Amino acid sequence: MDPDSVAKAFVEHYYRTFDTNRAALVGLYQEGSMLSFEGEKFLGAAAIATKLTSLPFEKCAHTVVTVDCQPAGPTGGMLVFVSGSLQAGDGEHHIKFSQMFHLMPLGPGNFYVHNDMFRLNYG
Amino acid sequence: MDPDSVAKAFVEHYYRTFDTNRAALVGLYQEGSMLSFEGEKFLGAAAIATKLTSLPFEKCAHTVVTVDCQPAGPTGGMLVFVSGSLQAGDGEHHIKFSQMFHLMPLGPGNFYVHNDMFRLNYG
Repeated sequence: MDPDSVAKAFVEHYYRTFDTNRAALVGLYQEGSMLSFEGEKFLGAAAIATKLTSLPFEKCAHTVVTVDCQPAGPTGGMLVFVSGSLQAGDGEHHIKFSQMFHLMPLGPGNFYVHNDMFRLNYG
Repeated sequence: MDPDSVAKAFVEHYYRTFDTNRAALVGLYQEGSMLSFEGEKFLGAAAIATKLTSLPFEKCAHTVVTVDCQPAGPTGGMLVFVSGSLQAGDGEHHIKFSQMFHLMPLGPGNFYVHNDMFRLNYG
């Protein structure tokens, strides 16, 4: 599987999980994983999952617009850069976001999220 | 210097150079550096500098709104995630953008850009 296909498969899996079973996102992170969410920092799968599951809306739907991907260097990691929009709660309002993931290999074809940075694009 | 200060100093230096002496950006990249610019891919400092200096505007001014930073893992690299706006040419129009950099260490306090992904946020 080429890196672009891995990145696209990861992105589909990530947002589908976020939108249907957010608590299961914990399985994509490890102890050393980091999340910056609108500038607020979280370290480790447990703290990250607590943050994501405590966001103040139950339903949400992500729409991905662009996915860019590059190999991160000698570690075999991969950088994935996403732009899209997010509909939270029952509103019709779509908010744009940008997010980047640094995926690190756990084994062949198997990655975890080492770095995750998320920003809403107001405007 | 803590990582957040390094990231902020890099971001200030990068966009000041972009806005005042774009050709000098070549010095921030190396042979293995990668740029994804609006989905188009470039490999190596020379190809990246050629792309950046051939963008169809002479004057531009970046305004940085947010800078997030995380250590990238065992390589000592650093991930920098920027959102801001860009005024290109003589127009008054500001276009929002998001950009991420993976900085890799060349020596103490000295980094080059290994990965660079840039997207305009239309809308």
